[in-house]
Amino acid sequence: MDLVQQVREGNKVAIARLITKAENEAPEATAALRELYPDTGRAYLIGITGPPGSGKSTLTDKLVKEIRKRGKTVGVIAVDPSSPFTGGAILGDRIRMSDLSLDDGVFIRSMGTRGSLGGLSKATHDAIKILDAAGFDYVFIETVGVGQSEVDIVKTADTTVVVSVPGLGDDIQAIKAGIMEIGDLFVVNKADKDGAEKVVIELGQMLELNQNMGDWYPPIVKTIASTNEGIVGLVDKINEHLNYLANSGELIKRRKERISNEILNLILKRVTTKITGKLSEENFWENELDEILNKLKNPYDVTDRVVDEVLL
Amino acid sequence: MDLVQQVREGNKVAIARLITKAENEAPEATAALRELYPDTGRAYLIGITGPPGSGKSTLTDKLVKEIRKRGKTVGVIAVDPSSPFTGGAILGDRIRMSDLSLDDGVFIRSMGTRGSLGGLSKATHDAIKILDAAGFDYVFIETVGVGQSEVDIVKTADTTVVVSVPGLGDDIQAIKAGIMEIGDLFVVNKADKDGAEKVVIELGQMLELNQNMGDWYPPIVKTIASTNEGIVGLVDKINEHLNYLANSGELIKRRKERISNEILNLILKRVTTKITGKLSEENFWENELDEILNKLKNPYDVTDRVVDEVLL
Repeated sequence: MDLVQQVREGNKVAIARLITKAENEAPEATAALRELYPDTGRAYLIGITGPPGSGKSTLTDKLVKEIRKRGKTVGVIAVDPSSPFTGGAILGDRIRMSDLSLDDGVFIRSMGTRGSLGGLSKATHDAIKILDAAGFDYVFIETVGVGQSEVDIVKTADTTVVVSVPGLGDDIQAIKAGIMEIGDLFVVNKADKDGAEKVVIELGQMLELNQNMGDWYPPIVKTIASTNEGIVGLVDKINEHLNYLANSGELIKRRKERISNEILNLILKRVTTKITGKLSEENFWENELDEILNKLKNPYDVTDRVVDEVLL
Repeated sequence: MDLVQQVREGNKVAIARLITKAENEAPEATAALRELYPDTGRAYLIGITGPPGSGKSTLTDKLVKEIRKRGKTVGVIAVDPSSPFTGGAILGDRIRMSDLSLDDGVFIRSMGTRGSLGGLSKATHDAIKILDAAGFDYVFIETVGVGQSEVDIVKTADTTVVVSVPGLGDDIQAIKAGIMEIGDLFVVNKADKDGAEKVVIELGQMLELNQNMGDWYPPIVKTIASTNEGIVGLVDKINEHLNYLANSGELIKRRKERISNEILNLILKRVTTKITGKLSEENFWENELDEILNKLKNPYDVTDRVVDEVLL
């Protein structure tokens, strides 16, 4: 049986193999994704993001277990900070989740960020589609990040959960301010630690300042992921948000935006490849680069020329 | 006198004004940067990066003061985590540096990341060029980040300083592993805190694993930035790295790479603008997007078509 059909049937070995092919940018992966496209759009995509040390992976772990109890299946993509140059994912406490991967209704995959243009690589987007087409009810995308990856997760997920934690210092607070606008739900994890209430209050105050809010007012949920406290309530809130999205028409709107972003990224990737190829072809590095370095030319004029030559 | 000439002469008001114009993507800024290009390439660019809470800004503050004591001028660009949607920089302890900005030989600017394609925005790169052309001997670029912004800083700076700190938990350690390959110098700040020696040892072990090392073996420097401890030695090491770069030919190599990256980014930015324009022009969002959402078309075929229409 072919790989695409096996993926459709939820075969975990086939899923893992296709994700690897997507990571390696194998032509078969592109063909398979084209074929699988009509099977996508059924999964509910949940992004989980927050600063390093906020306990996101334990939280994801517990959310998955609770969702499983409710009879739904879950795929998890954990985007690990990776070496920008080798692209290797740093596995870590991901191993902790191994009891979950024995469950047939759960699939977990760690992926590196690979220093692509955005925080989430094309391979991550492919993996989400593969898990969606494989029939998982929920797909979690977990990222660590303080910038681009949050933006990307928002552009990708139906629901974005932003995790905070007490006692992470001023830099973190500043970052938190930066991601206030992207959360559909806010979690204060490690809620038994000193300062948890302060974080809840601060989050509440920042939410009040947000002018761009629609009909959904993001709830702030306290959890202690390590002891499962607050997890049931958090899953309830996540499902509540799903209902809101479906009933308000917001789900369609978000998914349209997702598709348009995806196409723009696909186009840019193609253009990048083409331009990189063109530049090397012309021995650009040998001649023009030296002239720029010696101030005989400037990068702007060279850009004009290349754009004229490459674009219609 | 015109703005470009005032910038050349190091007029701080003119510098600030031109950076603002670059941030706003004013056409005058593009023209000014073209004109200033031959004046660039003289400053020594130093990137400082590390996780939130590592005390990067205090460290930068003290480095600037030490370099000033040695009679050199310094420009600082602090890339603050910003709201991905509003693009506003979150000023914070940047205000702390205000005693420095009274010094005529120092210029400090906070800039938002603005959720651009990479971690450093085009405006940041423009600002670096402006400070370079204005005649500052050193230009510091300080970023918080766990992914793309580190890659970008490496692609931009001559020397990259990676700051670590004891006691930031496992996530941070993983991130540290991810950025080992990008550091020319490693700093363990807050070296009086518990666990500092452990961080030094771990860094040393990770450095030993790095196979891609050239002739420069990155030193690990302990500092307590708040009390100025280790700062003199760190500036010495930074200058040592500059000498190494200049004498080994590595400086030319890095700067060539920087220019090629810059041109690629300029081209991509232009192409993005063009494509975004084209897509809206065709009422693409109204028709094609619905068809994709309803699985009548897939994003890959649409990408093919747009690329064919846009690229030569």
